[in-house]
Amino acid sequence: VASHAADANVPQPSVAAPRTVALCGGVGGAKLAHGLAHILPPEHLTIIVNTGDDFRQYGLHISPDVDTVLYTLAGLADPDTGWGLARDTDRVMTALRILGNDAWFHLGDRDLATHLMRTAWIEADLTPTEITRRLGERLGVRANVLPMTDVSVSTVIDTGEGELPFQTWFVRQGCTPPATGVRYAGIEAAAPTLEASDALRCAEVILICPSNPYLSIGPILALQGLTEQLQDATAPVVAVSPIVGGKALKGPSARMLADLAGEASCRAVARLYSDFLDGLVIDRTDADLHDAVDSLGIAVLETDTVMNNHPDRLRLATATLAFARTLARDRRRRP
Amino acid sequence: VASHAADANVPQPSVAAPRTVALCGGVGGAKLAHGLAHILPPEHLTIIVNTGDDFRQYGLHISPDVDTVLYTLAGLADPDTGWGLARDTDRVMTALRILGNDAWFHLGDRDLATHLMRTAWIEADLTPTEITRRLGERLGVRANVLPMTDVSVSTVIDTGEGELPFQTWFVRQGCTPPATGVRYAGIEAAAPTLEASDALRCAEVILICPSNPYLSIGPILALQGLTEQLQDATAPVVAVSPIVGGKALKGPSARMLADLAGEASCRAVARLYSDFLDGLVIDRTDADLHDAVDSLGIAVLETDTVMNNHPDRLRLATATLAFARTLARDRRRRP
Repeated sequence: VASHAADANVPQPSVAAPRTVALCGGVGGAKLAHGLAHILPPEHLTIIVNTGDDFRQYGLHISPDVDTVLYTLAGLADPDTGWGLARDTDRVMTALRILGNDAWFHLGDRDLATHLMRTAWIEADLTPTEITRRLGERLGVRANVLPMTDVSVSTVIDTGEGELPFQTWFVRQGCTPPATGVRYAGIEAAAPTLEASDALRCAEVILICPSNPYLSIGPILALQGLTEQLQDATAPVVAVSPIVGGKALKGPSARMLADLAGEASCRAVARLYSDFLDGLVIDRTDADLHDAVDSLGIAVLETDTVMNNHPDRLRLATATLAFARTLARDRRRRP
Repeated sequence: VASHAADANVPQPSVAAPRTVALCGGVGGAKLAHGLAHILPPEHLTIIVNTGDDFRQYGLHISPDVDTVLYTLAGLADPDTGWGLARDTDRVMTALRILGNDAWFHLGDRDLATHLMRTAWIEADLTPTEITRRLGERLGVRANVLPMTDVSVSTVIDTGEGELPFQTWFVRQGCTPPATGVRYAGIEAAAPTLEASDALRCAEVILICPSNPYLSIGPILALQGLTEQLQDATAPVVAVSPIVGGKALKGPSARMLADLAGEASCRAVARLYSDFLDGLVIDRTDADLHDAVDSLGIAVLETDTVMNNHPDRLRLATATLAFARTLARDRRRRP
C-alpha cells in the first residue's frame, strides 16, 4: 500500500470502501448486490450482469437478470418472487390470453414499460450497456450496473432429448427434462464490454454473487478473456456459494450441480471456480466441507448466507467484503 | 343477370346481399363497416383497410386503422374515442412516463396485447394479411378484414416546414403545421394483396367509406393497379362523403380538402374520386351541392350520413347498399 501511494498513476486503494466488482445473475445475486449497494459508495460498485438469459418474447427484448438487478437495487422488486415489480398488475397478460396466447412468460403491466423502452432503444441501435445505464438512471439506481457484453449470447440447455432455449426450459417447462449440458450460443464472438473490462482491471475486490454457476455466472466466465482477467487480477476473487446444505435457495443450481458436477455442494462450486478463486463464503450449515474447500487452495469464510430480509443482505455483504480484504493476492492464479 | 345465370363459372349475383368490398380508414369508415357487417353475411363483406398509418412505437408494430376496424366490428371499440378498446386502462403508459418516456401515442393495457401479438407474428415472418386474419378470428370478427397490402407503406406529411411521419404530425403535433402535401413512402413497391384484388374482382358493390380521402383512402387508391381496377370493375363504386356541411366529423379531412383541393365539401370529394366513382352519398345538409356532383357524372343519394349511434350505422349502410344496387355499371369508367 505504501509503495502504491508514491505513484500518482496507480489508483489508491480504498480501505473502507474498496472498488468492488460483482459478477451477478438474477434473484439471489441481486440480493447480495443490494447489500453491497448499501455499504459502498455507488462509484465504487460495479455489477456485471449475465445476459445469457436474454430473449425475445411478444416481440419484446427481455433481459431478465439485468432487470432483476436494477429493480432490486432500486428497491422496487417484488419481495415475493424476487423478480418483476412489487404490486404490479397483469392486465396485458390477461388480454394476451383472451387473444389466444398462453402468455407463459409473465410480464407485469408496469414491468412491460421497461421492456418497451429497451426494445425501442435496441431498434434505435443503442447498446445494452447504454440502455442499462439509462434505465438505471431513471429507476434511481446509483451503482454501475453493466450487462456482461453488448453482443447477443443465448444460453441453450441440452436435455438429452434435444436442446431448448433457456427460458423455454426454465420457465415454460419448469426445468424439465433435466439438463445434461449447457452451452452459450454466440459466446465465441462475445467479449466483455470495455466498461466491464475496465471495472475488473481497476477492482480492489472481485465478488461472484450466489448465482447459478452454469446459468448465471457461466456465461460471464465464458466471455473472451474474462477468466484470464480474473486469474491475472491483483484483486482477490471471492465467491458466495449459492448452495446451502446441498440445496439451492432458488432455481435449479443444486440439481444442475448434482447432474453436471457430480454433487450439489459448496465444494462443487469451489471446484468450478478453482482456476481463479481466492476465497469462498459458505454457510455455517456446510462447516463439514470447510476443509475440503480449503484443500483446494481456497480460503473459506463460514457465515450465515441465507438472505431472508434486508439486514441479512447488509450483513452478508459486509462480511464478504471484509473477508475479501483479508485475502492478499500476491500471486497470479493462472495455472 | 339472366345471361350470367347460364354460365356456372360466373359468380351469381346476390340481390339481397351483394358481395361487397369497402375501402376503409379508421374511426368514421369503421362505423359504416360495422353497419355493413350487420346487414351482410360475413362471407359477402370484405373490408380493405388502409395501412399507411402503420408505424413502430415503443418497439411495437402498430396498425391503427386495422385495429380500429377489428375492434369496431367486434363491438369492443371505445365508444368515446372510436379507437382503442372500451374501458381499457393505462397502467403501462403511466409506467412509461415514470421511466421518462412522454408516451405521446397512447395505448391502453388491453390494446397493448394486440400490438404484442402483431409484433411477435411479424418477427415470425407472418404477413399482415395472415396476422389480421388471426386477430379477427380471435376477436370474433366474421367479416373479411384485409390490410390493403403486405408491403410497408408510410404516409408522410409535407408541412412546408419539412416532412413529418404521419403519426407524429397527426397525434403528437395535433395536425400542425398544416399539411401542404401528402406522400406514401414505399408505395412504388406496394401492390394490393392477392386477397384484396380477388375481393375487388368478385365484388358486386364497391364502397368507399367516409374516411379521409388523403390519409385513409389515398394510400389504398395509390396501390399498384388499384385505381385501374376500380375503373374497370363491373361493380358500381359508391363513396360516402366524409364531409358534412363543410366539416369533417372527425380528424383533419375538412382542413386538408380546403388546403389541398381548394374547398372542404362533398363536391371536392367527388372530384377526387371522379375517375372511378359512380355514386356519392351526401348528407341532406349538402343538398345545395347535389347538382354540382351530379354534373360530374356521379349519381347522388341525399340522406342522413352522421352516425351517432348503432341504428345510424345500420340505416346508412342499408341506404348506401340499396343506392349502389340502383347504379348499373354498363360501361368502364376508365377515361
